[in-house]
Amino acid sequence: MLKSWLPVAPNSDFPLENIPFGIFSPESAPDELRAGTIIGNTVIDLQELLDLGYFDDYENFGDIYPFVFQSECLNDFIAEGKAFTRFVRKQIQTIFAAGSDLEKKENELDILLYDADEVIMHLPVMIGDYTDFYSSRQHATNVGMMFRDPANALLPNWLHIPVGYHGRASSIVVSCTDVVRPLGQRLPQGAEVPVFGASQLLDFELEVAFIVGAENAMGERVSTADAEDYIFGLTLFNDWSARDIQAWEYVPLGPFLGKNFASSMSAWVVTLDALNEFRVAGPAQTDPQILPYLEYEGKKHFDIALEVAIQTPAGDEKIVSNSNFKNMYWNMVQQLAHHTVGGCPMRIGDVCASGTISGDTPESYGSMLEITWRGSKPITMPDGTERKFINDGDTVVMRGFAEKDGVRIGFGDVSGKILPALPL
Amino acid sequence: MLKSWLPVAPNSDFPLENIPFGIFSPESAPDELRAGTIIGNTVIDLQELLDLGYFDDYENFGDIYPFVFQSECLNDFIAEGKAFTRFVRKQIQTIFAAGSDLEKKENELDILLYDADEVIMHLPVMIGDYTDFYSSRQHATNVGMMFRDPANALLPNWLHIPVGYHGRASSIVVSCTDVVRPLGQRLPQGAEVPVFGASQLLDFELEVAFIVGAENAMGERVSTADAEDYIFGLTLFNDWSARDIQAWEYVPLGPFLGKNFASSMSAWVVTLDALNEFRVAGPAQTDPQILPYLEYEGKKHFDIALEVAIQTPAGDEKIVSNSNFKNMYWNMVQQLAHHTVGGCPMRIGDVCASGTISGDTPESYGSMLEITWRGSKPITMPDGTERKFINDGDTVVMRGFAEKDGVRIGFGDVSGKILPALPL
Repeated sequence: MLKSWLPVAPNSDFPLENIPFGIFSPESAPDELRAGTIIGNTVIDLQELLDLGYFDDYENFGDIYPFVFQSECLNDFIAEGKAFTRFVRKQIQTIFAAGSDLEKKENELDILLYDADEVIMHLPVMIGDYTDFYSSRQHATNVGMMFRDPANALLPNWLHIPVGYHGRASSIVVSCTDVVRPLGQRLPQGAEVPVFGASQLLDFELEVAFIVGAENAMGERVSTADAEDYIFGLTLFNDWSARDIQAWEYVPLGPFLGKNFASSMSAWVVTLDALNEFRVAGPAQTDPQILPYLEYEGKKHFDIALEVAIQTPAGDEKIVSNSNFKNMYWNMVQQLAHHTVGGCPMRIGDVCASGTISGDTPESYGSMLEITWRGSKPITMPDGTERKFINDGDTVVMRGFAEKDGVRIGFGDVSGKILPALPL
Repeated sequence: MLKSWLPVAPNSDFPLENIPFGIFSPESAPDELRAGTIIGNTVIDLQELLDLGYFDDYENFGDIYPFVFQSECLNDFIAEGKAFTRFVRKQIQTIFAAGSDLEKKENELDILLYDADEVIMHLPVMIGDYTDFYSSRQHATNVGMMFRDPANALLPNWLHIPVGYHGRASSIVVSCTDVVRPLGQRLPQGAEVPVFGASQLLDFELEVAFIVGAENAMGERVSTADAEDYIFGLTLFNDWSARDIQAWEYVPLGPFLGKNFASSMSAWVVTLDALNEFRVAGPAQTDPQILPYLEYEGKKHFDIALEVAIQTPAGDEKIVSNSNFKNMYWNMVQQLAHHTVGGCPMRIGDVCASGTISGDTPESYGSMLEITWRGSKPITMPDGTERKFINDGDTVVMRGFAEKDGVRIGFGDVSGKILPALPL
């Protein structure tokens, strides 16, 4: 375990081993966005660190854009490449380690440090394109059992393809952004014509997203062996879903208004490097045998505990799911190799989400659709009220962390509160 | 008819009535991108026009960013609002009208004008999100007849919803960009497991796209009555499709690798204003009755003749489709009202394409899938070779223009040549 001179609570998501990256502004200057990291409960201004010379030792420092952290997004920082982003992370671990000189330089600390409660967090990246995969076998099986054939729940392509679809980038928001319940068309049970109104079946989807960190030229593919070079880091991701709108619209071209009213992501991007100790093997993929371009070597799954809580308007909380990112059939390097195999260009800041991450038991399912089995098994909240889906005024909070040998690498929450729909 | 002192051939797409906008760079300085317009075969540098003071009379000129045209995209120009973009178009029509003084100012013309053959055209906008609709009834019917039930070709939702899906923005390229045939998975007929390789069924889709010109806040809707205020202009659009990849992957979440290897758009954005004289009424939408939020007043369809040609590697050309943009069941204001009804935020530069535009007869179908009816009715090229789909080395060219009372408003071509797939 590394020890910092900054206070870090034992169960903090952000020990010195983590050093995630995000975009913040001080509450006192909400329009002054810049890149930062966080240790314990202290946010650190990276532009000020650079200006003070703490990154001067980088071997190609002269090539680094001098205002790379004074930005509304991490894209320019990520674009400097993994050599620099790794150097920055290591350097921060050095100067904030117990015993380092910086602790005593009060004039520098005055401009470097913010209490996490005194900053506003913003979306960490400018997202060009957003892709959502569908890579948890249990989730795909559950959905297939509910909506198609229980005996043949998985569609014929599912075990051959990391199925995915293009989502809407413009409606991805950072944690703590309220979400308005969407209006749309739905087909009431037994009806022949649709009605228009607020979604009655608003749901979350528990997902992990990766942020693209390098670009392939159009027409070029990225192999599973190279794919991690194209991944900067991970966030938690809530792919809000209006099940009734989605059910009526999605044949034959996939989800549209059922998803594009909002998706929420956590504010801090945890690097792949920070998660290196938490790699685990994935499932066998020999029945059926996957195609060679999807094969990979090494451990490419990650053991990250995930949970979902629903908070009532009064603040009562109930944990409704305990899942794990290791519950994936297709991993990130397979997703990226598949995404680019036809030549699709990936851009820095693009987001690829995992799809709902469901484990083998109802307690680990990653959506209300599965947890309540389409509403047939409501859950009871601490205040005695029932939930089949999400009510107005409810807040959905997702949390995630990897933990081993006393080191805990966390993501911080992604939360969002549902506001009532607009008038018709 | 307006008359310019610049030469305009009788069948030019770009008379003085048009004044479309695009991004170009001189062949002599390919990295110096700037906004321009085109009259006849002459491209005009808008930054130089501004610098010379030709837009000074705009009433809020002091608010205009002084380098608004010195840009890699039209987004900043569009963001100045329709009052300014309309002023610019009108002012260009004035100073390039026959008899205007500018004709004699040779020193100014030297820096303002380029022959269209001496410039490189670039993608006109930075595209945040791209949506593809599916709004031609004949196209949806044809696809339904081929792949589903001929007696019930339209799916139950189709006459209620302007069905659409999210596409990939990063692989949209400007006309004249070569397109590499994609690799991917396909399920051979009768097989139980997929094979990996180059797409065997590469197709075009004849579409028209609109460019979003104003933004709605997340959670707000745009009504059909207001929607045209959010549309800057139109381009031709070829939504390249790998039918075999698409067929295997698209259930249940829609097209992904079958589409995201490339889409091509024409270089000049034709404004809605330039097309105002070509409005026509759309089809009745009373059987079934559409929902109130999709109703609209006035003429919102446009009579734009469209054609598709295939050129062999040797340059022999065959026109394979003559269609028309008026062949739409759902129009652009309905598409935009639907897209935003759940609160999805639109951003300047976003692209919404129509979906394949097919007329009532095989000669007017907008894809090879329909023209050759899944390959069962091949077409014969001038050199005697047959085409079921698109071959390596073929170039697909789409053209479009509106014409009335001797005035022709054209789009310029969108063309793309198919290169062989990469080695496996």
